[in-house]
Amino acid sequence: MSKKKHRRKISKRGMPPGTLVYTGDRPANPSAVLTMRFDEQHYEEQETYVREWLEIPDSLIWVDVCGLTDTSLIAQIGDDFHIHPLAQEDILNTHQRAKLDEYDNGLFFILHNLRLDPGHLDLNSEQIAVFAGKNFAVSFQEDPDDSFAAVRKRAREGVGRLRKKGSDYLAYAIVDTIVDGYYILLDDIESQILELEESMYNNGSDPSCKARIFELKRVVNQFRHRLLPLRDAVARFYRTESDLVEESNRLYLRDVVDHVAQILDGIDNQRDILDSMEALYHAEAANRLNDVMRVLTVISTIFIPLSFVAGVYGMNFNNMPELHWRYGYFAVLGIMFLASLGMLYYFRKKKWF
Amino acid sequence: MSKKKHRRKISKRGMPPGTLVYTGDRPANPSAVLTMRFDEQHYEEQETYVREWLEIPDSLIWVDVCGLTDTSLIAQIGDDFHIHPLAQEDILNTHQRAKLDEYDNGLFFILHNLRLDPGHLDLNSEQIAVFAGKNFAVSFQEDPDDSFAAVRKRAREGVGRLRKKGSDYLAYAIVDTIVDGYYILLDDIESQILELEESMYNNGSDPSCKARIFELKRVVNQFRHRLLPLRDAVARFYRTESDLVEESNRLYLRDVVDHVAQILDGIDNQRDILDSMEALYHAEAANRLNDVMRVLTVISTIFIPLSFVAGVYGMNFNNMPELHWRYGYFAVLGIMFLASLGMLYYFRKKKWF
Amino acid sequence: MSKKKHRRKISKRGMPPGTLVYTGDRPANPSAVLTMRFDEQHYEEQETYVREWLEIPDSLIWVDVCGLTDTSLIAQIGDDFHIHPLAQEDILNTHQRAKLDEYDNGLFFILHNLRLDPGHLDLNSEQIAVFAGKNFAVSFQEDPDDSFAAVRKRAREGVGRLRKKGSDYLAYAIVDTIVDGYYILLDDIESQILELEESMYNNGSDPSCKARIFELKRVVNQFRHRLLPLRDAVARFYRTESDLVEESNRLYLRDVVDHVAQILDGIDNQRDILDSMEALYHAEAANRLNDVMRVLTVISTIFIPLSFVAGVYGMNFNNMPELHWRYGYFAVLGIMFLASLGMLYYFRKKKWF
Amino acid sequence: MSKKKHRRKISKRGMPPGTLVYTGDRPANPSAVLTMRFDEQHYEEQETYVREWLEIPDSLIWVDVCGLTDTSLIAQIGDDFHIHPLAQEDILNTHQRAKLDEYDNGLFFILHNLRLDPGHLDLNSEQIAVFAGKNFAVSFQEDPDDSFAAVRKRAREGVGRLRKKGSDYLAYAIVDTIVDGYYILLDDIESQILELEESMYNNGSDPSCKARIFELKRVVNQFRHRLLPLRDAVARFYRTESDLVEESNRLYLRDVVDHVAQILDGIDNQRDILDSMEALYHAEAANRLNDVMRVLTVISTIFIPLSFVAGVYGMNFNNMPELHWRYGYFAVLGIMFLASLGMLYYFRKKKWF
Amino acid sequence: MSKKKHRRKISKRGMPPGTLVYTGDRPANPSAVLTMRFDEQHYEEQETYVREWLEIPDSLIWVDVCGLTDTSLIAQIGDDFHIHPLAQEDILNTHQRAKLDEYDNGLFFILHNLRLDPGHLDLNSEQIAVFAGKNFAVSFQEDPDDSFAAVRKRAREGVGRLRKKGSDYLAYAIVDTIVDGYYILLDDIESQILELEESMYNNGSDPSCKARIFELKRVVNQFRHRLLPLRDAVARFYRTESDLVEESNRLYLRDVVDHVAQILDGIDNQRDILDSMEALYHAEAANRLNDVMRVLTVISTIFIPLSFVAGVYGMNFNNMPELHWRYGYFAVLGIMFLASLGMLYYFRKKKWF
Repeated sequence: MSKKKHRRKISKRGMPPGTLVYTGDRPANPSAVLTMRFDEQHYEEQETYVREWLEIPDSLIWVDVCGLTDTSLIAQIGDDFHIHPLAQEDILNTHQRAKLDEYDNGLFFILHNLRLDPGHLDLNSEQIAVFAGKNFAVSFQEDPDDSFAAVRKRAREGVGRLRKKGSDYLAYAIVDTIVDGYYILLDDIESQILELEESMYNNGSDPSCKARIFELKRVVNQFRHRLLPLRDAVARFYRTESDLVEESNRLYLRDVVDHVAQILDGIDNQRDILDSMEALYHAEAANRLNDVMRVLTVISTIFIPLSFVAGVYGMNFNNMPELHWRYGYFAVLGIMFLASLGMLYYFRKKKWF
Repeated sequence: MSKKKHRRKISKRGMPPGTLVYTGDRPANPSAVLTMRFDEQHYEEQETYVREWLEIPDSLIWVDVCGLTDTSLIAQIGDDFHIHPLAQEDILNTHQRAKLDEYDNGLFFILHNLRLDPGHLDLNSEQIAVFAGKNFAVSFQEDPDDSFAAVRKRAREGVGRLRKKGSDYLAYAIVDTIVDGYYILLDDIESQILELEESMYNNGSDPSCKARIFELKRVVNQFRHRLLPLRDAVARFYRTESDLVEESNRLYLRDVVDHVAQILDGIDNQRDILDSMEALYHAEAANRLNDVMRVLTVISTIFIPLSFVAGVYGMNFNNMPELHWRYGYFAVLGIMFLASLGMLYYFRKKKWF
Repeated sequence: MSKKKHRRKISKRGMPPGTLVYTGDRPANPSAVLTMRFDEQHYEEQETYVREWLEIPDSLIWVDVCGLTDTSLIAQIGDDFHIHPLAQEDILNTHQRAKLDEYDNGLFFILHNLRLDPGHLDLNSEQIAVFAGKNFAVSFQEDPDDSFAAVRKRAREGVGRLRKKGSDYLAYAIVDTIVDGYYILLDDIESQILELEESMYNNGSDPSCKARIFELKRVVNQFRHRLLPLRDAVARFYRTESDLVEESNRLYLRDVVDHVAQILDGIDNQRDILDSMEALYHAEAANRLNDVMRVLTVISTIFIPLSFVAGVYGMNFNNMPELHWRYGYFAVLGIMFLASLGMLYYFRKKKWF
Repeated sequence: MSKKKHRRKISKRGMPPGTLVYTGDRPANPSAVLTMRFDEQHYEEQETYVREWLEIPDSLIWVDVCGLTDTSLIAQIGDDFHIHPLAQEDILNTHQRAKLDEYDNGLFFILHNLRLDPGHLDLNSEQIAVFAGKNFAVSFQEDPDDSFAAVRKRAREGVGRLRKKGSDYLAYAIVDTIVDGYYILLDDIESQILELEESMYNNGSDPSCKARIFELKRVVNQFRHRLLPLRDAVARFYRTESDLVEESNRLYLRDVVDHVAQILDGIDNQRDILDSMEALYHAEAANRLNDVMRVLTVISTIFIPLSFVAGVYGMNFNNMPELHWRYGYFAVLGIMFLASLGMLYYFRKKKWF
Repeated sequence: MSKKKHRRKISKRGMPPGTLVYTGDRPANPSAVLTMRFDEQHYEEQETYVREWLEIPDSLIWVDVCGLTDTSLIAQIGDDFHIHPLAQEDILNTHQRAKLDEYDNGLFFILHNLRLDPGHLDLNSEQIAVFAGKNFAVSFQEDPDDSFAAVRKRAREGVGRLRKKGSDYLAYAIVDTIVDGYYILLDDIESQILELEESMYNNGSDPSCKARIFELKRVVNQFRHRLLPLRDAVARFYRTESDLVEESNRLYLRDVVDHVAQILDGIDNQRDILDSMEALYHAEAANRLNDVMRVLTVISTIFIPLSFVAGVYGMNFNNMPELHWRYGYFAVLGIMFLASLGMLYYFRKKKWF
């Protein structure tokens, strides 16, 4: 359940805006920092925060912070790169919506790494913040594990355009990696749906299916709620007039915009499927009730009148002439038999069984 | 129930616009006034309305009125600060939607302090009006208790940027405080939902749950209806072209816009959760009906035919040969036993129990 | 039922546009005319149409027509004030949507006085048309009774700003009076809802409640359909670039825009309440069915098997050893008693009663 | 059923655009042509296509074609008036949406004459195409019968403004006539709804009502789907910057825009009514099921236990002391009577009957 | 089921954008290439990729590739015509939404050939990519079979405008052909709906109908999801400011925009029909349950009390005076008969049968 979402500013109420407090719920791993410096020819990296590299002109510096527990380090980096206090606050406050904020000295991107928690159907969200300025980019990952290994590898090995381009392309590469991850999430949800569909097909739809459909719907809705602000943010990235973004890179940004739209299409498709699974579940349940009622009615309607007849001839009146007829018993049995045949015919005609 | 919402102008029908009548329902506490005056170096406050301070140049005056019963005082303050009659009317008429009106001499903000009435699930609304002009801000709180203590403390102690900035930042600080309060409301609703979910999980979903779901939905919808106009008002504050708003403060206003969007996301999430709780409630109820019907049908279908057989051999016909067979009774018992086994097998195959 | 809404042009089909035919359904009272003339110092009124006053410069003329049966009079007034034939047609055709049409020589406003027909829940609509030109305003009320008494009183007594301002303010005052009346309608609907809610609470929800909920929903929907075009019309009044509207009056128009939005909020709130009342009604009905079925099932499940046992020992076989046991009868009674206890325990565990 | 709607281009697949094939389903009446020529003083008409009149300056030519089977004639007219091949194709392809296309040499309007097919509830659609150029207008009606008699009469008799104005006013007059016809359709649907409502009120709501509600909803939805594109087309007519449309005629176009909006309001109202009729139907059906179940439960719950008691004393045990009590029988009868009274009281308290 | 939709970039995660991998699921047919070259007078074609023709000025080159397995060929063509790497990637990645991307050197169109898979109701999608530059167009079809035969025939035979116009008209012709194919799909779905409707009418609505309705709804929704982005793409084609598109061709593009809107109308209509079929199905099912319950109730209510009476007189009390009355038996029979008549009358009055 996504029950702990909105705790955000409670403990911070009354503090002036811009106060730095980490509001997430990750275990208190120390923050790990990796500083990279590269241009088209060179690549250099160090596993600490190398402040001195800021002075070196003509190369791109990328500082990547994993884990948000070390607020003083983050404040220091923020101040060195002149990240606005509000942006610094947003980095630490991990319940943000995806967004792109433009500051005078750079673009600030908030987005989320989403994964499906396999045990109990739920979305796991890790907040990613990227601040891209002239000649530098700073990225903050909430989780200690590294989501940007592939991007870093391309930088290290000089594959593709990454080292030939500026910080805007680096920011794009990071956003693109995150968005690519959503395809995996979409696929994970898809397999859950497929599995459920199969189990409904094989075992009939018991109430646990219903609960599972609802859980899946909730996950898909959460996913969608996460993507809608991202769509706006990515579109603003594409259309931004900031001179940080080189004209020739717009095509790549348009590509990301397309991908987000495509994922939203996939989500809508899954919602349709889940809706029709739910409707089918209801239809089946109603159908089963109908079946039950039909059996009850057929049996009752045949045997209750017959029992009545038997009851009549079980009465103890002195003067009941039929009882003394020779074939009275067999006549009654015959009549009962014919009556039940008649009713069976009637029910058959009504297609009740 | 929010039944007393729209009484607004009834008693005022036919009066020319701008007539000052308090339309709220708060107990008739006397209005309390606090006048503050501060700039970057100094801070001064007095617990009355200090009209003379208006003349003093170069410092910011903040008049804070708690309680709206003293209409003449409000009229006097309104006239001293040249607040438009329509704005004065809006201050007293406490059934406004949130809004930002721009006047020639200032910005006029209406918004609401919302709290969850714990006893019977309902939203408690206190109207807040702020008029921010050049070098002054006047705030009106409907309730006698003070919602701005934290802001005032920052002014008094000179923490943060409050004393360095103008009346626009003060207005922002007030709005931000109110909006921060919505996170608490969101959390209160969340705990109500969690509590209900737990009780549904433990005790099954009785009809009282249904009523509670509806009450919560109503509260969430009311909350949402309150926030939608606020979103527009805050966005207009952010985008206003009034020269009252300093360019460097826009970032803070954008922050508030983000917060309101985030709260609306939270509300949408809660609506989703409540919707699926409602659907689950219905599914469970339907399921229970199904269970009941299945038990009824199984029992009836087994025993009604058997009773009929017993009834047949309870008839008093003279000539019923089976009655005189030696093992007739045991044969009938055996047949009954086999028939019920057969039917149990049939029901088991149909997965009815 | 609002069944006679769309008769509008049937009898007029094929006529050239601008033909004057009254299409309403009011009793054929003669039209009453009141002509007023006022400026800041003077006020004069006469209970006929005083055509000569048109020549007098520098004062505002207001011609108010009650009842639309006298088409020739309306045509004459229309021609004297150069009201466009299409506007004249709209005045008489009383099934218009609310709208603001701008003509070269003035603004033409159509809106409706709405009241709740107390007997059978239905909206009563009276069409009001106002044509405001330079130095004059003409208003047409469909009903013979006067809706503008309060406005006229303010003009007569010189209270407020009415006599200091032009025809745009007069038009505003008329529109404001009508819109104020909607608060009363909103309250009337609210009391109907409250009454129904109470009766549902006290007497349980019988089918008549359902019908009443639907009637109320229909009324609320009709109200909403009436207000949506009015909102547009009022917003256009506020934003019109016509030089008839004085800049300083815009604040008043913005006030009306706010009121309409506020009333629409109230309507949305009532729709939410009615929706949840309907849902609760359904939930209660389903619940009652569940109760009924549970009682049936408990009773049947206990007594049908017992009856079967009694039936067995009521058979007349010669050789039924149990019948001759000394305590056979009591043993069977005891077994029956224990069996019913067992079943009661089972049902209790299943929370069926 | 509107099942044959989309056959449009199947037989035409692969043909270059602009190929002229009539795709409608009207009987193969020959096309009838009427050519009119008029200005403010004169009026002249001939029942063939008078090509020579094209040369005559300073008067308006109106060619009206009834029936679309004569494609070569239509091609000839199209070429004479320089109607674009795509427009010619649209004239013959009678499954168009309503639209206004602007060409260099004129405005091209597609709209539909709609009627309610009385036998089986269905919309009958006749496509009307109008091409209005400088000094001429050509109209094409799909049906052989004439829908423009009233317009032609006004032209012939010189009533109203028709002969004083240009081809834009003529096009307006045609569109206005069609739109006026929608009021009749709206009324026809209204009477169907009223009739159904009355029959539901008098005879209770049997399943045939349900089917009828659905048919009406389908018709109303079809009507709405037809009007939505027309609304856009008419609004574009009103706002077109083409110099064909004289400024003083815009007021008339605004009038048509209003009418279409008014009809759409009427349609929305009917949809509301049908929705609430459907909901009431469901509520009644559920209610009836409740009634049935209540009767069943009351009867069963009273008599099944009583039958059991009777069965007990019908057992044939040797040793059943009660049987030999003097008033045993009456005591049992009395107990049964009291038990049934108790149960009746219980049911009454539960308001089950 | 559309379960394998979103696999897109999984295997590509971490690769730099622009990497060429075919992601579709078509059998590995070799790609077939057809190169055409034509102007108003000449037409020439060859069944390979004729690279040299690129040098020839003043004629239009059309390279048509069927099958996407030969990625190196596609890369070569892409490089020869300077197709941007992202566009090349999109060609091979066959899970794109329809779109129009504008590049410096041309327009890039992605759309889909859709067919109804007859066996199991599902949409079959083939991705078509078209890159139209100055003097050339390159088209890529996912399937080996040719969808453009009709277009090619018009080029070959010089019918219509194809050979007189530029690459924009060729792109239009291709898009138009694809869109025309949607009419066939619409018709195929229509026949499926008709068939289902007939079978529901003839055989009553069993649960298999329900499943079929859902399958059809899913297909229609998928179709709609495919068309919505196409509508935007086509509208952008119509409104593009690229100088590739000749002004006189806009009318043709407007025509395609109209067709897509018309198809979307058809889809909406089908959704309405399917919705009302579903509602009717539910209504019928509920009705049948009602019927069943009524029969059960009538039978039970009549015979259970009668059986009770018979049971009473089957008791074995010694002292039961009625048993010894002469006509006791017949009196009881008579009373039973009258009671059942009474109940039948009651049920008849309640219209239960």
